[in-house]
Amino acid sequence: MKIGVLTSGGDAPGMNPCIASLVREASRLGHQIVGIRRGYGGILSGETVVLRPEDVPGFYKLGGTVLLCGRLPELEEPGTQKLAAEKLEAMGLGALVVLGGDGSFMGGLALSKFTGIKIVGIPATIDNNIYGSDYTLGYDTALNKLTAYIDDITDTGLSMGGRIFLVETLGAREGYFPYAAYEMGIADMCVICETSPADDEVVHQIEEKLRGKNGGSVIVTVAEGMYRTQIYYDRLTEDGYKAKINMIGYQQRGGTPTARERLHAARFAEEALKAVADDGGQGCQYVVYAGGRYKLLPFAYAVRRKPFAFRA
Amino acid sequence: MKIGVLTSGGDAPGMNPCIASLVREASRLGHQIVGIRRGYGGILSGETVVLRPEDVPGFYKLGGTVLLCGRLPELEEPGTQKLAAEKLEAMGLGALVVLGGDGSFMGGLALSKFTGIKIVGIPATIDNNIYGSDYTLGYDTALNKLTAYIDDITDTGLSMGGRIFLVETLGAREGYFPYAAYEMGIADMCVICETSPADDEVVHQIEEKLRGKNGGSVIVTVAEGMYRTQIYYDRLTEDGYKAKINMIGYQQRGGTPTARERLHAARFAEEALKAVADDGGQGCQYVVYAGGRYKLLPFAYAVRRKPFAFRA
Amino acid sequence: MKIGVLTSGGDAPGMNPCIASLVREASRLGHQIVGIRRGYGGILSGETVVLRPEDVPGFYKLGGTVLLCGRLPELEEPGTQKLAAEKLEAMGLGALVVLGGDGSFMGGLALSKFTGIKIVGIPATIDNNIYGSDYTLGYDTALNKLTAYIDDITDTGLSMGGRIFLVETLGAREGYFPYAAYEMGIADMCVICETSPADDEVVHQIEEKLRGKNGGSVIVTVAEGMYRTQIYYDRLTEDGYKAKINMIGYQQRGGTPTARERLHAARFAEEALKAVADDGGQGCQYVVYAGGRYKLLPFAYAVRRKPFAFRA
Amino acid sequence: MKIGVLTSGGDAPGMNPCIASLVREASRLGHQIVGIRRGYGGILSGETVVLRPEDVPGFYKLGGTVLLCGRLPELEEPGTQKLAAEKLEAMGLGALVVLGGDGSFMGGLALSKFTGIKIVGIPATIDNNIYGSDYTLGYDTALNKLTAYIDDITDTGLSMGGRIFLVETLGAREGYFPYAAYEMGIADMCVICETSPADDEVVHQIEEKLRGKNGGSVIVTVAEGMYRTQIYYDRLTEDGYKAKINMIGYQQRGGTPTARERLHAARFAEEALKAVADDGGQGCQYVVYAGGRYKLLPFAYAVRRKPFAFRA
Repeated sequence: MKIGVLTSGGDAPGMNPCIASLVREASRLGHQIVGIRRGYGGILSGETVVLRPEDVPGFYKLGGTVLLCGRLPELEEPGTQKLAAEKLEAMGLGALVVLGGDGSFMGGLALSKFTGIKIVGIPATIDNNIYGSDYTLGYDTALNKLTAYIDDITDTGLSMGGRIFLVETLGAREGYFPYAAYEMGIADMCVICETSPADDEVVHQIEEKLRGKNGGSVIVTVAEGMYRTQIYYDRLTEDGYKAKINMIGYQQRGGTPTARERLHAARFAEEALKAVADDGGQGCQYVVYAGGRYKLLPFAYAVRRKPFAFRA
Repeated sequence: MKIGVLTSGGDAPGMNPCIASLVREASRLGHQIVGIRRGYGGILSGETVVLRPEDVPGFYKLGGTVLLCGRLPELEEPGTQKLAAEKLEAMGLGALVVLGGDGSFMGGLALSKFTGIKIVGIPATIDNNIYGSDYTLGYDTALNKLTAYIDDITDTGLSMGGRIFLVETLGAREGYFPYAAYEMGIADMCVICETSPADDEVVHQIEEKLRGKNGGSVIVTVAEGMYRTQIYYDRLTEDGYKAKINMIGYQQRGGTPTARERLHAARFAEEALKAVADDGGQGCQYVVYAGGRYKLLPFAYAVRRKPFAFRA
Repeated sequence: MKIGVLTSGGDAPGMNPCIASLVREASRLGHQIVGIRRGYGGILSGETVVLRPEDVPGFYKLGGTVLLCGRLPELEEPGTQKLAAEKLEAMGLGALVVLGGDGSFMGGLALSKFTGIKIVGIPATIDNNIYGSDYTLGYDTALNKLTAYIDDITDTGLSMGGRIFLVETLGAREGYFPYAAYEMGIADMCVICETSPADDEVVHQIEEKLRGKNGGSVIVTVAEGMYRTQIYYDRLTEDGYKAKINMIGYQQRGGTPTARERLHAARFAEEALKAVADDGGQGCQYVVYAGGRYKLLPFAYAVRRKPFAFRA
Repeated sequence: MKIGVLTSGGDAPGMNPCIASLVREASRLGHQIVGIRRGYGGILSGETVVLRPEDVPGFYKLGGTVLLCGRLPELEEPGTQKLAAEKLEAMGLGALVVLGGDGSFMGGLALSKFTGIKIVGIPATIDNNIYGSDYTLGYDTALNKLTAYIDDITDTGLSMGGRIFLVETLGAREGYFPYAAYEMGIADMCVICETSPADDEVVHQIEEKLRGKNGGSVIVTVAEGMYRTQIYYDRLTEDGYKAKINMIGYQQRGGTPTARERLHAARFAEEALKAVADDGGQGCQYVVYAGGRYKLLPFAYAVRRKPFAFRA
């Protein structure tokens, strides 16, 4: 069987090891992987590349996605959905694997209305916010990036006391990154949307933390989704404190995938290919990792909001 | 309460974040942590240091153990056990937390025959071989070290084809590291004690792998406990192949702890302090991570052999 | 002889290897190193620690400074200078080594008016802006941090085309970091104070670069001393471009010192101790690396502005 | 002009940034770069690829060589030289740039007897042993790899005292790596071919070092070209010491190029293209970095032995 693969939405570390694992596993099963470039857009433009096992050994350590990615807002229109479905069938594909987030899965669901080609999703976003899954590809690498970033800042924090470092993390409105840094102990405090604290309270707590530090520094992680880092900074400097904003930015979602990332990538790939083979008539599904096991959920579940867990 | 902490046996990344977490959590609970240096030997020599929350922010990113570690073979003698128990009591400790492997827990069990001080164990060894626990401190960091090591070797493997790289991993007789590298896809093959393959078979399979590579290189991970790397190398070079032995050595157990390491370290510390507080008369116990949860097991269970799981 | 060492101003990677090298080399020469904590402030407060060779093996890989650092604005007053000079003499020191930037050397010069204790400076600031020296401790490490940061961002830049990444670097008003990234080829363009381009011109050039990229992304490094990153961002987004600000922040001056850092640190330490021993009556001096050699310059030269070199 | 580029001999970090810099600089000058795969072998097999500026942004952070490399022993035969020269001309190339070591330059010299195409060499080998050049591409990255390797081992060295770590470095018979580690201070001792010490003396010195450490550990770097690591190990363990061999292996020549590597790569590329343009009739030359400047030397000089400098 020819199986298409595309990476959709934003890039995440772990996409490349997952592509590599799909290619190797498909080869073992006698299938062929056809890479579709630039996400759903590549279906329309016909940008494809056949991936053989000898092509992939260099992929494992690469961040980003060798297939390129992107968003295709036009896919919300039935006309585009129908056209994409036709193009997919014209490629001679027996199935399509989509790596991405909830929006990407919705795109797959829309396509599936116009074609019988089985579409299987693999959660891939650093935000870790796919319903039903404890893990999404990119999270462990991004968390390690943040950890290394804070470690580096801590060198100055320890050498020059009495400072406040505001570290704004990626992760949209999700609190996973700021909270995990606090849970590890490398951040003294975290500010996340899930608890939506008032500015006064945040600033007061930070100042309290600093006082309790005996001349040490304070590191505060702030979710980018709060959109308040600058405000905290202004308030703290007005109060006479030495504060510094540190925005890790897109560094957090780049870089070599971690070991754990690659292990999940390999298992997600394997499960996706099992789902492809399975003809039980369940329709389009995505793989999740939940309670230590890999399972499948219907695409429609991806619209639900994953409840935040106060344990990383 | 004054709670003693020592790191015993070999060092493992994750020990320092765990010490830091114990100090911070103990401080929150109103306890004081007394670090005992050089493992059980420090009980006898009285080398101790009080650790306060302001001492520990620099610990999180350090590999090894700031308390130093070591083995104390004399602890197998009842006389030494009795002496150590007396010294512990003289220190005024209400409890003792031991970070180490099964041998370290056995030492705690021996001590407990001569004192009522509660002793709690935390699994800390890169070998990941503590009975009842899916995780031991050091494993994730050591696996990432191995991954980075293989990534670097792969640069030459991809640039110059037709080569065989034998990568000997740490991990004693356990197959976790070689197998995980294979599972990720960065090793083409692994040789582990659990399957105890014959030399002929191993060499034959490696040569087959190389033939299937179309001019690419082959990376083979070998457990140090096999003690066969040199033999495979000699056989392969005799057969005319370009082989190279790469021994990561003690690099694999050094270096900055990963994010996951630190999260486990924080949770192990928290659970150990809960166990200290619990007066249910269960005797000495060690914390385990099993099926996604943290639990306690009696020290005596640590002598059992953990079954190898063919999934990392 | 007892030789004092302090780290002054901001911390820089390379300070710790230099302290370690001073201790080892002093020990070989029969001298003793006394560490003074928190910069010049530690002279007044008397916070000192004797450093022996067995204390330092762990220092080499640490960023920041184990002696802590800081600024002492009061040192501009003659009264404080006199008091500090008296305290220094009371410590029984035969010489003082100061690691820091030009401000730190000026402090040493001021002190030297009140004491005959020889004071020797070692350039240590990531900004690489000490007059007469091609190198200052911290620069190579900080440049590698920036390189790694841009590499990570490039993963997204390559995966999702058509974007503009504004990367604001540390380095105050100096153009070394932004320019070096451009010189390497990892930044498509740099904006530095030395050429003080108009906003219109910068924004126009960035947009031109993007057009020349055929769907690729553009990475622009901007010196923090420009204080224009937000303005470029606003202008670019107004013009309809997808831009993102990435501020590496204090990460750039933290982290493990590079090999080159440590080699310079060892040589600076050696030359500083030679200067201490040399009784030629030259007064206080600082070590420089110029044209491939290590030399000494009078403290007074440090106030001069180092001309910017358009080659890193 | 069409300019060919090939990477010959062993791979070295810095080759890829140099290829990228050649492509960008050539494009600015109006030339086109044709990559020849697998070293000189690719001339015979005709494996070439046109490299455009948009192809190269991903190259900067890659170790190894995207053009692949290898040795072609047949190039010592005049028949092969003549054939290769004819094939080169048939490709329509105006010049050829060769990245590699002295053997690779000799290959170029041999070719030049049969063609007027200008051949320019760029020193690229981690061994840093090209006559007339203070630097060869790969050295800084490989030295940083070794440094990181020793740092990791030091974690165990510090945590468990009384041990001897023998660290065998790459670098063939050259002493640069072991000596630089000693010079930095992270190795307590180094054993290099240049001083060819007797085994007795080496073992005795190691044991003396350990005695002087007050319970600390000793790290000894050994050049692979000594071929004595196992012998030292056997002798030390016979004498009752706890020793461990650590062979960094091919890790040392892999991995992301450092900042300094990329800066040298950019300059080497620029100088090579200047040499290509220069029609002064000097024949084939290679670029060197000497005394802080970039210069050209005739290919024939590359056979000379570079004298070892006891300063890294």
